[in-house]
Amino acid sequence: MDSLHSLNCQVCRADTPTVSGAELETLLTQIPDWALDRQDDVDCLSRQFRFRNFREAFAFAGQIASLAEQQDHHPALRIEWGSVVVYWWTHRIGGLHLNDFIMAARTDRIAREAQG
Amino acid sequence: MDSLHSLNCQVCRADTPTVSGAELETLLTQIPDWALDRQDDVDCLSRQFRFRNFREAFAFAGQIASLAEQQDHHPALRIEWGSVVVYWWTHRIGGLHLNDFIMAARTDRIAREAQG
Repeated sequence: MDSLHSLNCQVCRADTPTVSGAELETLLTQIPDWALDRQDDVDCLSRQFRFRNFREAFAFAGQIASLAEQQDHHPALRIEWGSVVVYWWTHRIGGLHLNDFIMAARTDRIAREAQG
Repeated sequence: MDSLHSLNCQVCRADTPTVSGAELETLLTQIPDWALDRQDDVDCLSRQFRFRNFREAFAFAGQIASLAEQQDHHPALRIEWGSVVVYWWTHRIGGLHLNDFIMAARTDRIAREAQG
């Protein structure tokens, strides 16, 4: 399998099953810094990223927003002084799709570059 | 009293008391669209703003981030597709300061301009 961060999001149909079981476990091992989380009763992936101040946190969020527009797949972002928490899930299926793991891996790559 | 949105943030000392009682009630009447909220056991002001898509939501968040840098007072922002929730509180005193009401009023003004 190609590295997740090298993949692009696929079109997701409303009847696509959510990722679960062994597939979920395998995908989680590829993004070890992410937590399996819940927001508003929906499974999601979340990770907090730390920065030196608000400005750097917001700049990182801007890079994630650009990626989201490019892939047409959008996260929730909680930004405050020195911190961005990124949440990925697939609204259309009410849970996790491969796309969310791809976006998590691509988020990690952007963070590594941002934090240099 | 001048309109809140015309004021600038003041330097806040760590021993400044939090806003409470009649002063709190009076200030809340000046920002009627904001809720008195709690995040991590700290009083804050919160309001959700709606947008047509992720891009417009993120652009609004960028305007609030610029205001925050200019005033050196920073919110938490939760951004997702079509929505930004803004939270104002004063970390230094663990609660609400006049600065938070000023920033809420200035946030409203930016939203009115953004939403035309």
